[in-house]
Amino acid sequence: MDFLQFDDFIRAALREDIGTGDITTESCVPESARSVGVFVAKADGVICGIDIAERVFALVDGQIKLVKRVSDGENVKKGDVIAEISGSSRGILTGERVALNLLQHLSGVATAAYHASQAVAGTRAKIVDTRKTTPGMRVLEKYAVRVGGASNHRFGLSDGVLIKDNHIKAAGGITQAVTAARNAAPHTLKIEVECETRDMVREALECRAEIIMLDNMTNAEMRECVALIAGRALVEASGNMGERDLRAVADTGVDFISIGALTHSVAALDISLKLE
Amino acid sequence: MDFLQFDDFIRAALREDIGTGDITTESCVPESARSVGVFVAKADGVICGIDIAERVFALVDGQIKLVKRVSDGENVKKGDVIAEISGSSRGILTGERVALNLLQHLSGVATAAYHASQAVAGTRAKIVDTRKTTPGMRVLEKYAVRVGGASNHRFGLSDGVLIKDNHIKAAGGITQAVTAARNAAPHTLKIEVECETRDMVREALECRAEIIMLDNMTNAEMRECVALIAGRALVEASGNMGERDLRAVADTGVDFISIGALTHSVAALDISLKLE
Amino acid sequence: MDFLQFDDFIRAALREDIGTGDITTESCVPESARSVGVFVAKADGVICGIDIAERVFALVDGQIKLVKRVSDGENVKKGDVIAEISGSSRGILTGERVALNLLQHLSGVATAAYHASQAVAGTRAKIVDTRKTTPGMRVLEKYAVRVGGASNHRFGLSDGVLIKDNHIKAAGGITQAVTAARNAAPHTLKIEVECETRDMVREALECRAEIIMLDNMTNAEMRECVALIAGRALVEASGNMGERDLRAVADTGVDFISIGALTHSVAALDISLKLE
Amino acid sequence: MDFLQFDDFIRAALREDIGTGDITTESCVPESARSVGVFVAKADGVICGIDIAERVFALVDGQIKLVKRVSDGENVKKGDVIAEISGSSRGILTGERVALNLLQHLSGVATAAYHASQAVAGTRAKIVDTRKTTPGMRVLEKYAVRVGGASNHRFGLSDGVLIKDNHIKAAGGITQAVTAARNAAPHTLKIEVECETRDMVREALECRAEIIMLDNMTNAEMRECVALIAGRALVEASGNMGERDLRAVADTGVDFISIGALTHSVAALDISLKLE
Amino acid sequence: MDFLQFDDFIRAALREDIGTGDITTESCVPESARSVGVFVAKADGVICGIDIAERVFALVDGQIKLVKRVSDGENVKKGDVIAEISGSSRGILTGERVALNLLQHLSGVATAAYHASQAVAGTRAKIVDTRKTTPGMRVLEKYAVRVGGASNHRFGLSDGVLIKDNHIKAAGGITQAVTAARNAAPHTLKIEVECETRDMVREALECRAEIIMLDNMTNAEMRECVALIAGRALVEASGNMGERDLRAVADTGVDFISIGALTHSVAALDISLKLE
Amino acid sequence: MDFLQFDDFIRAALREDIGTGDITTESCVPESARSVGVFVAKADGVICGIDIAERVFALVDGQIKLVKRVSDGENVKKGDVIAEISGSSRGILTGERVALNLLQHLSGVATAAYHASQAVAGTRAKIVDTRKTTPGMRVLEKYAVRVGGASNHRFGLSDGVLIKDNHIKAAGGITQAVTAARNAAPHTLKIEVECETRDMVREALECRAEIIMLDNMTNAEMRECVALIAGRALVEASGNMGERDLRAVADTGVDFISIGALTHSVAALDISLKLE
Repeated sequence: MDFLQFDDFIRAALREDIGTGDITTESCVPESARSVGVFVAKADGVICGIDIAERVFALVDGQIKLVKRVSDGENVKKGDVIAEISGSSRGILTGERVALNLLQHLSGVATAAYHASQAVAGTRAKIVDTRKTTPGMRVLEKYAVRVGGASNHRFGLSDGVLIKDNHIKAAGGITQAVTAARNAAPHTLKIEVECETRDMVREALECRAEIIMLDNMTNAEMRECVALIAGRALVEASGNMGERDLRAVADTGVDFISIGALTHSVAALDISLKLE
Repeated sequence: MDFLQFDDFIRAALREDIGTGDITTESCVPESARSVGVFVAKADGVICGIDIAERVFALVDGQIKLVKRVSDGENVKKGDVIAEISGSSRGILTGERVALNLLQHLSGVATAAYHASQAVAGTRAKIVDTRKTTPGMRVLEKYAVRVGGASNHRFGLSDGVLIKDNHIKAAGGITQAVTAARNAAPHTLKIEVECETRDMVREALECRAEIIMLDNMTNAEMRECVALIAGRALVEASGNMGERDLRAVADTGVDFISIGALTHSVAALDISLKLE
Repeated sequence: MDFLQFDDFIRAALREDIGTGDITTESCVPESARSVGVFVAKADGVICGIDIAERVFALVDGQIKLVKRVSDGENVKKGDVIAEISGSSRGILTGERVALNLLQHLSGVATAAYHASQAVAGTRAKIVDTRKTTPGMRVLEKYAVRVGGASNHRFGLSDGVLIKDNHIKAAGGITQAVTAARNAAPHTLKIEVECETRDMVREALECRAEIIMLDNMTNAEMRECVALIAGRALVEASGNMGERDLRAVADTGVDFISIGALTHSVAALDISLKLE
Repeated sequence: MDFLQFDDFIRAALREDIGTGDITTESCVPESARSVGVFVAKADGVICGIDIAERVFALVDGQIKLVKRVSDGENVKKGDVIAEISGSSRGILTGERVALNLLQHLSGVATAAYHASQAVAGTRAKIVDTRKTTPGMRVLEKYAVRVGGASNHRFGLSDGVLIKDNHIKAAGGITQAVTAARNAAPHTLKIEVECETRDMVREALECRAEIIMLDNMTNAEMRECVALIAGRALVEASGNMGERDLRAVADTGVDFISIGALTHSVAALDISLKLE
Repeated sequence: MDFLQFDDFIRAALREDIGTGDITTESCVPESARSVGVFVAKADGVICGIDIAERVFALVDGQIKLVKRVSDGENVKKGDVIAEISGSSRGILTGERVALNLLQHLSGVATAAYHASQAVAGTRAKIVDTRKTTPGMRVLEKYAVRVGGASNHRFGLSDGVLIKDNHIKAAGGITQAVTAARNAAPHTLKIEVECETRDMVREALECRAEIIMLDNMTNAEMRECVALIAGRALVEASGNMGERDLRAVADTGVDFISIGALTHSVAALDISLKLE
Repeated sequence: MDFLQFDDFIRAALREDIGTGDITTESCVPESARSVGVFVAKADGVICGIDIAERVFALVDGQIKLVKRVSDGENVKKGDVIAEISGSSRGILTGERVALNLLQHLSGVATAAYHASQAVAGTRAKIVDTRKTTPGMRVLEKYAVRVGGASNHRFGLSDGVLIKDNHIKAAGGITQAVTAARNAAPHTLKIEVECETRDMVREALECRAEIIMLDNMTNAEMRECVALIAGRALVEASGNMGERDLRAVADTGVDFISIGALTHSVAALDISLKLE
């Protein structure tokens, strides 16, 4: 966990919650008070964010100790203890909400990624995420996707070439768009083309696109395209896949199934902090 | 919409998505290309974030024009046009994802707030949010809650006094905690006490707490507490309310029902940008 | 003292003073030189900011030690030693000015708050501050106000509702303004109305404003208003109170006297750092 | 006025005051409401910060217009109109406090600088400021000092060499300190030595210090030192000069009198915004 | 040119140069003075950064006009006029140094990239840059590389997989490293392996690395490796290529030649601003 | 080394290189792996930036240890070991590039400064730098200049008065410009005038400019001007001095020779990190 990257984000989240000060805690809880407690899962799921939660408390008060009982990526059952916490009561109460908000949200993402991955287990298909993430949280959410057992698509507009219909129109065709991108982009990036028809797939193959996205196709159409591509490019299924039977999609032979809902429609995993 | 407050956030979201540059667009789309298009709802819901989306494009390219066909807070049906956009193709393609991520998420929050508020329409109860928000987006999510027809609880730890069980334990009792908070907090803030039993409610009333939160009570218990309080304090129902029959809760006579799920478990409202 | 909140401010203050480097110290003082010294009060007053001063040196050089002889809130006499300092001579000389600027200013605020509070000791009235603070230092100055024995009014525009004449005009009357604010503001905030006449006080009471500010009234007028209000709302006296006989104002029976001069016209408390 | 330098500061001041939103104004004042008003001096003094105040409103709402009736540096009498303002009522009410806090504080500094400068008018002495400024506001306060008719000493530790007693001790003597500084500092900076005795003055002259500060001397002592120096260095009088008879100090023949109180003990100039 | 990305950098550069104010210009040049002038090449080269220079002045003073006579990427001869400037004399003098520092440095990079690309014109080889860039200026320097006619390698550690000797050792072999990277990295990124021997090249080919870097090989060795690879992977020549005969390297048949010196050892192109 | 000043810069450089994560290292190198290695000079030169390099690794991973074998300012020969490093393999690989980019660039500056200083050793002339530095790195580059044995000119527009032709024109003459600057600038700054002719030198002397810059003069002209000035002002030689015979320039009797190429045209010193 690279805190260089997340410390500013965590600090901003703490400032957002604390505002000009936690007046309830400062007035009711003596500075010398100490507490111990546990984070408990109140539902089944995959835990993600326990290191981030630990860091939240560390940034509030360097003396608070958090002892992990599970690590990121482990499955928990309702009632399981996730971690123990001890230290200044003030610090624990002041950091609690931000820590839980992060832990619950990321565990929600990991749990969804886990279920999607389980649905295609045993097939060649991998579940991948999209750029439909929460503004400000992309790296964390994509980490949660991996923790849950799925894989990452590109992180943003600069680490992957994905040619969509509007790019094709502007460039004057698939071939022109692929050529332009190949000339301009670093040679370390593969070129992906979004295709809605078999003809588009054919043209993309001819100009040696390295990844072909099949957009909003039926399973039957995807099966045909996979046969047509025949291993000459990686194949990605896309288009409201969160609402599809993932096993059936995987059985068409695609390499990747990308699901926006992993990150844009997340139910928090219920976790609570119980102090003794 | 106070962009002083949101511009840094939007810029950070754009940087997160654009990284070192939108290489697909820069290589395939000429700088001079112009596009027009529409934002279309792909599901029923309440729109929120249209001004924010407009601002996203303004920060990418000051020449892009967005004409609103609905305003924040309006209900749309699947297929309704939300806004028209025109301007530089590059700018529109580069800003699209961030604009949609914000618009879809905030409309998801507004839609959930709308449904919860409708459920209690005609009763005295108001639906309110909590501090269980997405780190970095609290002010925007709380705006979406209002746009959907519900109300805001405190924004953070400094604009409300909420005495919970751990504060009570640390202070040595409800009376001691309320007294301490009243001495320390600005006189502009009301004091709220979280109560789990009738005895706690009684003690909170005696020391003149201005708001009493009934935590995790059955409807029957809440009805009794409302009778006991008899208008001497505002009453708030709390505790996994997102999973309860809100009408039944409202019928107990409480003044507020606070629901974390409005912001911690949001399904994005499906909206797409179609370019001609 | 929550340094999460103040570290950026202190670092900015150090950068402002150090610029591209402390050339006098770097050229004249060897890196290995060590110094010991004391902070001494050169006038009577209330100390505030000793922890902040300690933090200034910690951010310059983590090895500098500061041993407090008095704590924030204590009264000192001219000549009293406030703290001892020891460590790298370079670090002490480089941090000295910023530490003293903060310590002297905050002690100046605390001393003024102390004198105002002493003036009304034994009455029901509390001295409170205002939003007339030094840009960038509000949280620190409001801390100094508490340290001096007075209390805080709201911290800003979002943690209190204060309806002034222009809000009343725009809303169409006191009743309309109070109703609008009650509908829009979180229920955790009290509503205060600034009143210049008894008629305004009457209307504010009728719509159940929770705080009534008596603006620029004579003591006789305030006494009448207090009688009229009769405990149905908190009462705040306001309007150049820094130039009034505070005891006489308190004797009118008001609950709060707000004084802008506590923070907008501060005389620094003279404190010096003497190195052996 | 170089807003590149001040915009971040102003924005931070606005965020500090506005917090999560100006709830009173947003609930009571319609978005379409327009107001006109005037800034009025409520005491005699020198105005400073009118451009900064204008910028505050511009950053809140680009449509607000401010028409200056006086410029920075002009003397006003109680009752004089300083500027007219017109535009969105919401924007004016939301920006008012920050604009006034800046305008009143800087006008307070300028007024103090004006009175000090007037006191020595006709002598060779110039009044200069110190580094005893409000953290975060040094450039603005030093601007106010100039606006009031006084001059600036160095802005920080990197744009002037000022050798004090602790530097002298660490270096092993005045000569050693001056030599070390002359070798290390850019040749564009003069070297100033703080002297408490005539012997120190003599040694500083011998090693060709370009400025000699006479620290905490009586007027008689200063007169002797001025005679001794005889134009071979600039001479600065220092040490609680805010409490001295400035004319008498100036009559000793010194070139500069530095006064910390110009910026560390400022009484705000009373200015109000009256809306029609 | 995406100023969203560069504005903070330019503002920081201006603050670095301006410090607390351009005292020479502010004291000598009246606020109302206007100037016109030209940017003139004082040596032959390729221009890069003219839009950035324009932006520097725009951020200093929105009224300054810059009329380009050449665009980024054009060759100029000593004496050629690059652009005309007109506007406030103060703004032009204050922004001059930062604008020239950027323009001269980026034109230096573009000129070096141009000469390297010309050296291999007509071969299949493309010149590419490295991560050996000036801290803080990577995106700008990589832009200058493209402007000069060369291409970009990956922008950083997250948009390309480059397995070097230490990665191979840690993973336990080339095959293990490639497999691990393929499992973990987004499928949009190609995998590159740094090889020092033919055996390493063979193993990299067997596990289907998509790019093979030949590190510090003689031309003869590279020629053999190109034959061995036979189009199954892209081939990159690396290792102090700035000191090699680029044509001879290109003639070995490699696809890319990466040169750190394009950005780590840059001679500024001499350009001056002449005001009338 | 004042890390308060450089930490933000280093962190930004690390973010620039690491982007969303070092995927090669994270996938190939186990978190528990440890490495030891050495920094080796691959060319002769003066080392500068070893503390900065140490800080880079400290910010990546607080457990990495760097043991210096040479200090900033020491001469090394090709093959010399500069420092030893040990710690987490991941941290070392992730920080390597940024550390080397800084170390190589600053050592390049120091080496150039060293050679220039050696060229004038034994004369009265000192080599000084200019404001022609890399945006964002001025303080570091000027530190490298000192480390190499040369001296610093002013750091920016606020810590020195340098009156150039355009200032003279705008002010109406040298005398007017010098007078204006003397009135406005802090008295701690010397006033320098750029002169192209003997007549200009004469006028500058008459109004007591403290430094006279001889711009683009032949050695013969400079010798005459030095004689004319006769110790009444410091004398600086300027104008493409990087291309001149520095010894011959020094022999004209000038006090300073300013060279832009020290920082605007830097060849990195070749240094590599070899892990065992």
